[in-house]
Amino acid sequence: MPSASNAHRLGDIATHVRGELLGDPGLLVHGLNGLEEAAPGEVSFYGNPRYRKQFEATRASAVLVGMDAPARDGVALVRVPNPHLAYAKLLTLFHPARRPPAGIHPAAHVHPEATVHPEATVKAGAVVERGAHVGARTVLHPGAYVGEDARVGDDCVLYPHATVREGCVVGSRVILHASSVVGADGFGFAFDAEGEDGPRHFKIPQVGIVRIEDDVEVGACTCIDRATVGETVVGQGTKLDNLVQIAHNVRVGPLSLICAQAGVSGSAEVGTGVVLAGQVGVVGHIRVGDLAKVGAQSGVAHDVPDGQVVSGSPAIPHKDWLRASAASGQLADLLKEVRALRKRVELLEKEKGG
Amino acid sequence: MPSASNAHRLGDIATHVRGELLGDPGLLVHGLNGLEEAAPGEVSFYGNPRYRKQFEATRASAVLVGMDAPARDGVALVRVPNPHLAYAKLLTLFHPARRPPAGIHPAAHVHPEATVHPEATVKAGAVVERGAHVGARTVLHPGAYVGEDARVGDDCVLYPHATVREGCVVGSRVILHASSVVGADGFGFAFDAEGEDGPRHFKIPQVGIVRIEDDVEVGACTCIDRATVGETVVGQGTKLDNLVQIAHNVRVGPLSLICAQAGVSGSAEVGTGVVLAGQVGVVGHIRVGDLAKVGAQSGVAHDVPDGQVVSGSPAIPHKDWLRASAASGQLADLLKEVRALRKRVELLEKEKGG
Amino acid sequence: MPSASNAHRLGDIATHVRGELLGDPGLLVHGLNGLEEAAPGEVSFYGNPRYRKQFEATRASAVLVGMDAPARDGVALVRVPNPHLAYAKLLTLFHPARRPPAGIHPAAHVHPEATVHPEATVKAGAVVERGAHVGARTVLHPGAYVGEDARVGDDCVLYPHATVREGCVVGSRVILHASSVVGADGFGFAFDAEGEDGPRHFKIPQVGIVRIEDDVEVGACTCIDRATVGETVVGQGTKLDNLVQIAHNVRVGPLSLICAQAGVSGSAEVGTGVVLAGQVGVVGHIRVGDLAKVGAQSGVAHDVPDGQVVSGSPAIPHKDWLRASAASGQLADLLKEVRALRKRVELLEKEKGG
Repeated sequence: MPSASNAHRLGDIATHVRGELLGDPGLLVHGLNGLEEAAPGEVSFYGNPRYRKQFEATRASAVLVGMDAPARDGVALVRVPNPHLAYAKLLTLFHPARRPPAGIHPAAHVHPEATVHPEATVKAGAVVERGAHVGARTVLHPGAYVGEDARVGDDCVLYPHATVREGCVVGSRVILHASSVVGADGFGFAFDAEGEDGPRHFKIPQVGIVRIEDDVEVGACTCIDRATVGETVVGQGTKLDNLVQIAHNVRVGPLSLICAQAGVSGSAEVGTGVVLAGQVGVVGHIRVGDLAKVGAQSGVAHDVPDGQVVSGSPAIPHKDWLRASAASGQLADLLKEVRALRKRVELLEKEKGG
Repeated sequence: MPSASNAHRLGDIATHVRGELLGDPGLLVHGLNGLEEAAPGEVSFYGNPRYRKQFEATRASAVLVGMDAPARDGVALVRVPNPHLAYAKLLTLFHPARRPPAGIHPAAHVHPEATVHPEATVKAGAVVERGAHVGARTVLHPGAYVGEDARVGDDCVLYPHATVREGCVVGSRVILHASSVVGADGFGFAFDAEGEDGPRHFKIPQVGIVRIEDDVEVGACTCIDRATVGETVVGQGTKLDNLVQIAHNVRVGPLSLICAQAGVSGSAEVGTGVVLAGQVGVVGHIRVGDLAKVGAQSGVAHDVPDGQVVSGSPAIPHKDWLRASAASGQLADLLKEVRALRKRVELLEKEKGG
Repeated sequence: MPSASNAHRLGDIATHVRGELLGDPGLLVHGLNGLEEAAPGEVSFYGNPRYRKQFEATRASAVLVGMDAPARDGVALVRVPNPHLAYAKLLTLFHPARRPPAGIHPAAHVHPEATVHPEATVKAGAVVERGAHVGARTVLHPGAYVGEDARVGDDCVLYPHATVREGCVVGSRVILHASSVVGADGFGFAFDAEGEDGPRHFKIPQVGIVRIEDDVEVGACTCIDRATVGETVVGQGTKLDNLVQIAHNVRVGPLSLICAQAGVSGSAEVGTGVVLAGQVGVVGHIRVGDLAKVGAQSGVAHDVPDGQVVSGSPAIPHKDWLRASAASGQLADLLKEVRALRKRVELLEKEKGG
């Protein structure tokens, strides 16, 4: 577990998370930790009644708790509406992000006709092509690539080998993790049965772009394809996990969460505040409505209404899926039962006939 | 939507797509767009009767249509057998691919014993190792890597961070998208229960190669492993989408389409003109026959005959899968029905006995 | 198929694999091949009775066989307990791994405050950041990246564009394949309904690390996220295939095999000697017990006991899954049968009443 990187007084901590302090505001704490792992001098959090036992036994000096948590002898409490969020804010306080010094490393490759903000950082081996723009305080790690005429906004981080292909537009405060790919060609072909050299898949030029709005995070090895024409869009504040596939002309709304290894097919629309769990697949040209939730490994083959929770492959309303899953476990018994019933009916029929 | 990058006369356009023009051959058009988005001066296409309404309302100056489409007042028509293909060809005409100037950038790393064709382009940070060959007009973008003794043919594009490992062979007109990996070691181990330092998975050296034939496209972050011995092969004109896994010793035939996040296990064979939809899995050592189609998220556990359409996990003929899926939705009701029947039979039995 | 890269006497070969030779120890063999492909002068192996026919017809000069295989005229045999393992060892003998010469290429970027062992190899375009350590005989291929204060042990290979982010720890004899990513941020957010600029997903700083123990192999484009706090761990001798996702705070035990495109969610634990087949998903905060096996495409939603074999989504014991799968194929017929029974019962009821 991490030790403290600096120390803060409990009063300042309560102020930082806008919480109500039950304890000594002058107490100095120097780190964060889980309820079980925390030592005196550390802060922990308790947001789920399931961990009540650990809360009662913790050696932490202070605990972030919900508004109705019981008091505990010898432990300061900071009451907040959302202990998980407050804990996240404290992690940020105790582990402030370090930004490398601004400037272009001599072993970076910035085209003379690119514009890199003087407060940006371009490290060894990063590449910025002709006509590209890199905003203020943005960091390009080694191997990060910004293609011709692409634009990356302010306060972004492009980790090693993140690729932004030509013409694509990335907003501000965007994080592109290592080996993510923004703007590869969409997977579009027209079958040409009568090509000069025999049948072939004729490549449909993918002349659109990807537009990534502000505050988006794109996971490692996640791929967002450029549009055939127009734009593939990832909306403001949406977060994509690792190894996610976003196909050409998809539109993902703001504030959605797409978990690892999920895939969204061409021209599909994912609304606002949607959650796609891991390994979900969404077919092309459909819409997943605002605030919908899709269970892990589900295959979404039809429009999902706003707010609906769906599961299964093909995906159906979650309640129906639970019912079907339960029934499915009884199937083998059902087969036996029906065979037995058939015999009993045969017997009844015979006796009646006899 | 993209504006025109140049302009063409309608007569030339009809000739380019080998279509029959109903309209003024001298009319100048300057771009392409969807039926709904198109403005006067633009060309659109109408290939699916489902979009009839949009066809009737379009403001496009000309529309590519099938051989039997109705005329439309004030709109020129270009009749072709395959409007989608013709549209793709026009996109190529209006947006011709730009090739960067030939030559090796001073910040590229080409081994003195590598051979790079003088018409090839090797950009900053690309690497060509000893004994490797790069063909005419091939472009290596920054971070592209061609390993020892590997061969890349003519007119290829290796996007940033595409990797071709030692000894692998890539044909001509091949596109390797960003962070694709050709020739990583296959996943092969022999369990050694009696290793000197305890049990271990003994690594089976992967001494074969990958051979990619002409006109193949490999998606971003797609991985094609080298053979244990011999070759892993991707056939001529086959297209792989993003995040696809092709294991060691797999053979994919020509003209197949493998969609995003699908995986083919070791030594499996995928025939000619096969379609694997997104997130499909194919187990090892089986054969998916020519022209077979596998539905999204399916798990193929046995040979698939030529031309068969399969779905489900495990995959079964698509018709059976539709029937089973429908039945599965009725399962919970069936359980109730059988319980009710049992009671009715019990009653009949009792009465008979009574 | 590969030809020999050198030649060995049969007696030495038998000694190398600790086998019992039935044949001429002085016979010179120059390569390895499959039973069907082998020519005179080559060695093959026969471990599975299914290939008896090929064994009887092989032209190989010698064959590695199990302890109870029958003799064959004109073919030398080497009896070993595990022919597959012995074959792997011979592949290593015939194709010894080549290590590039030690030293730091002038176009590599090694920070003056990094420590690179003098016997390590750092190729053009590889990057070692401040405070990082690279051990003896480790090879960093072009584009490999070792972040600040990260440690990579001895005898490792980092293929092109492999990324080890800041602070992560990699043991010895570890292989990181191309474009693998060790230490990207975990996917952790706390929903903040009352952010100053509207609702947002507040990023939880991911301040932990990844620790990879000795003898681990990480496939191409595989992602292992750093812990929120603490460590994400991959245990000694475990092998990860391509495109695998290991989320934050996961602990994978030693000697496990995780096949391509499988994913393990946050804080899950995978035991010792576990096998996850391709495209498996494991939900967060559960445990897959030692020596458990999970079938391809399964979705593990609950703890799996030690040694259990599970399949399906959600995963159930493999035997139950086989039974349910078989029953599922009979479902449509069952529906018909129940409808017929209902009519027969109705008839019986009517007649009784009449």
